Amino acid sequence: MAGKDQRGSAVLDQDVFDRVCAMGDAASRSQRALALANTEQKNALLNAIADELEAGSHAIAEANALDMDAAKQAGISTGRLDRLLFDEKRIKAAAEGVRRVAGLPDPVGQIVRGLTLPNGLRLNETRVPIGVFGMIYEARPNVTVDVASLSLKSGNAVLLRGGHEAQRTNEATLSFICRTLQEEGFDASLIASVDRYGRMGATAMMEASGHIDVLVPRGGANLIQTVVRNSKVPVIETGAGNVHIYIDKTADFAKAIPILLNAKTQRVGVCNAAEKLVVHREIAEEFLPIAAKALDEAGVELLADDEAYGIIEDSGVNAQHASSEDWNIEYLALRMAVKVVESMDQAIEHINAHSTGHTECIVSEDYSAIERFTQCVDSAVVMANASSRFTDGGMFGFGAELGISTQKLHARGPMGLSEMTTTKWIGYGTGQVRQ
Amino acid sequence: MAGKDQRGSAVLDQDVFDRVCAMGDAASRSQRALALANTEQKNALLNAIADELEAGSHAIAEANALDMDAAKQAGISTGRLDRLLFDEKRIKAAAEGVRRVAGLPDPVGQIVRGLTLPNGLRLNETRVPIGVFGMIYEARPNVTVDVASLSLKSGNAVLLRGGHEAQRTNEATLSFICRTLQEEGFDASLIASVDRYGRMGATAMMEASGHIDVLVPRGGANLIQTVVRNSKVPVIETGAGNVHIYIDKTADFAKAIPILLNAKTQRVGVCNAAEKLVVHREIAEEFLPIAAKALDEAGVELLADDEAYGIIEDSGVNAQHASSEDWNIEYLALRMAVKVVESMDQAIEHINAHSTGHTECIVSEDYSAIERFTQCVDSAVVMANASSRFTDGGMFGFGAELGISTQKLHARGPMGLSEMTTTKWIGYGTGQVRQ
Repeated sequence: MAGKDQRGSAVLDQDVFDRVCAMGDAASRSQRALALANTEQKNALLNAIADELEAGSHAIAEANALDMDAAKQAGISTGRLDRLLFDEKRIKAAAEGVRRVAGLPDPVGQIVRGLTLPNGLRLNETRVPIGVFGMIYEARPNVTVDVASLSLKSGNAVLLRGGHEAQRTNEATLSFICRTLQEEGFDASLIASVDRYGRMGATAMMEASGHIDVLVPRGGANLIQTVVRNSKVPVIETGAGNVHIYIDKTADFAKAIPILLNAKTQRVGVCNAAEKLVVHREIAEEFLPIAAKALDEAGVELLADDEAYGIIEDSGVNAQHASSEDWNIEYLALRMAVKVVESMDQAIEHINAHSTGHTECIVSEDYSAIERFTQCVDSAVVMANASSRFTDGGMFGFGAELGISTQKLHARGPMGLSEMTTTKWIGYGTGQVRQ
Repeated sequence: MAGKDQRGSAVLDQDVFDRVCAMGDAASRSQRALALANTEQKNALLNAIADELEAGSHAIAEANALDMDAAKQAGISTGRLDRLLFDEKRIKAAAEGVRRVAGLPDPVGQIVRGLTLPNGLRLNETRVPIGVFGMIYEARPNVTVDVASLSLKSGNAVLLRGGHEAQRTNEATLSFICRTLQEEGFDASLIASVDRYGRMGATAMMEASGHIDVLVPRGGANLIQTVVRNSKVPVIETGAGNVHIYIDKTADFAKAIPILLNAKTQRVGVCNAAEKLVVHREIAEEFLPIAAKALDEAGVELLADDEAYGIIEDSGVNAQHASSEDWNIEYLALRMAVKVVESMDQAIEHINAHSTGHTECIVSEDYSAIERFTQCVDSAVVMANASSRFTDGGMFGFGAELGISTQKLHARGPMGLSEMTTTKWIGYGTGQVRQ
């Protein structure tokens, strides 16, 4: 009996649930062997996967061409089409990414802390893999490769649910990855896809408590919130970025305008792009006309609170009135809401009330203001005099990234290999007992 | 309209829910100020609380005497009565514990990682408090003091739900703590109790997503599982310890017997006490008679699989047959189940199938066996040739402990001050934008 798969909701099908749980259990058994592989063995595996992906790039690109044709016929947006494209050039870039992950330090086995008790018992807190990840993401085939390589390097297995538009591409990609796993003496169940079950696969993963250790949703706010709200498996919340740029009264405009433009327009549809501009009243009349003109020339539509609206309109740039909902929206578009505040503390309060906890920026020349802002703003990343676009695992030197955590438990900010591990305390004794 | 409070279930009362959410929000506002306090200010606060608890020890002990009388009349067990006792001596010991926490290093502000990007942007990953903890625990008044001191030192607020038998004691204790908070310029809402709402207070905390950042249950397995299953607030699972002691074929009996006795009997009702004995077949006929005699003399009742049963009975010690459920039970009593395995790998498989992931031990003189066991056993702590009783925040040098995490995300093993923090990335730039 097939389950319903309409309008984003999926009634759980017991058969699919059982199969996905069995996939998690198989992945877990294989993961226990992977966890024992040393770094050299894991790097050899990753390099072999990179080679195999390059060798198979023509076949993968052919599968992708079919997905692209279907997506075009379905009329999906050019932005999504671009993310779906996985041509030979992009496949080769993805393979290079796998080699880059092979070159990263292995977190597994790192001794995080250690001590020797007065009785001689030696304790090591050691990084170990978590186990089985579940990844639910949208139709971006390069994510399949990124996540597979990060999972293997960190000693974890992963169940994947990619967007259905990329199903043929992901299937072709995984066939090369899984063949290499077997050739290198690992089990193919380490990297498995639930795509054959459609949306039901994602629903089953959310229910598979005890079979999957942690679920990471990556994509739009709706996808992420659906997973956060419904999953019985622990979730690491990622991504949504209602990013604020606060221009302090002492801001150097020569820094502020480039940072603002870069944060808003350098890449629009990403979580570290700026969405809100907050300006100190003392410099609003001077700064906003310059900023509005620059943003307007870059094609950015402005939504302003009453005070900002007056100043922007007076300067000859068109703006609209922001609604109260605007302060909570991540536009992911050439649109920005603008607010004037009477003090930095008001800015901090506004940001902490409306931010998604991703990244916020202050532009200021006032040392004490920067110290206070960076301490009081409660987000994963707070930038002083730099663009929010730097919140990125690649920029932070993590190599590829699993996503950007906006929660506080376990991982916060860009998640790389270390964030895919937990620790285990190992005690080395000689017969110690507690008195 | 009052909610029902019967047999462990509580129908959520909207009014109580609103009040508990409001307490969480008040705690959050106060926490933002506490997060700005430096270590000296927090230590002064903790030392003042210690002084105030000592000065108030007579009044607190009087409140405890009322709780003790009521508990005796209700016929609760001597073990629980002992945990409930908070006489002047124990209050002074708790106050000393607060001073010890004051003396611990402050995790807040630690730079966990840092780097400077090629463009000069300097990035610090800095430890910061999480925000508002919720703690649901049983009637142990010293936990109230421990958790309050750990929360304040780590810059967090906490909502407490203690066992109802300790309600008068906790109320008296908190009155001294909250008075000190106000005298030292902090808000009393930082350490608040929902005990006035009975079990409904706990239910409301589990629903208060967005008002409480993380919930930590501490106590029996039922309490913990109720919270893990029902909470909408992220939970750190603690405590349940189905602890295994594996005696390898190369074990030095002169180490094995003291470790076994210490792990099983030094303190019986605690999560790091041993519950299961797993013995390699090659030495079972030699080891089990000695072990059974020693355990029997210590008053430990033995439940054995068929093979162990035969050996133990032949040695003249009485045993019972273990049922298949026994392998999953945390007895917290003078009882131990015994299993014979044909190989260490079978021991590892059995342990990974039945353990709660708390602590397991191997007794062995075989270097390679120890390396393999400590790598393959998937628990928070794995001890080689040492008692499981060392899994303890105090023993690990953490000062007081919030609990022992048996989950893999965020914290694993004993949780001290560091585990009550998250991190924030702070970027210090000079106008950097992304190319």
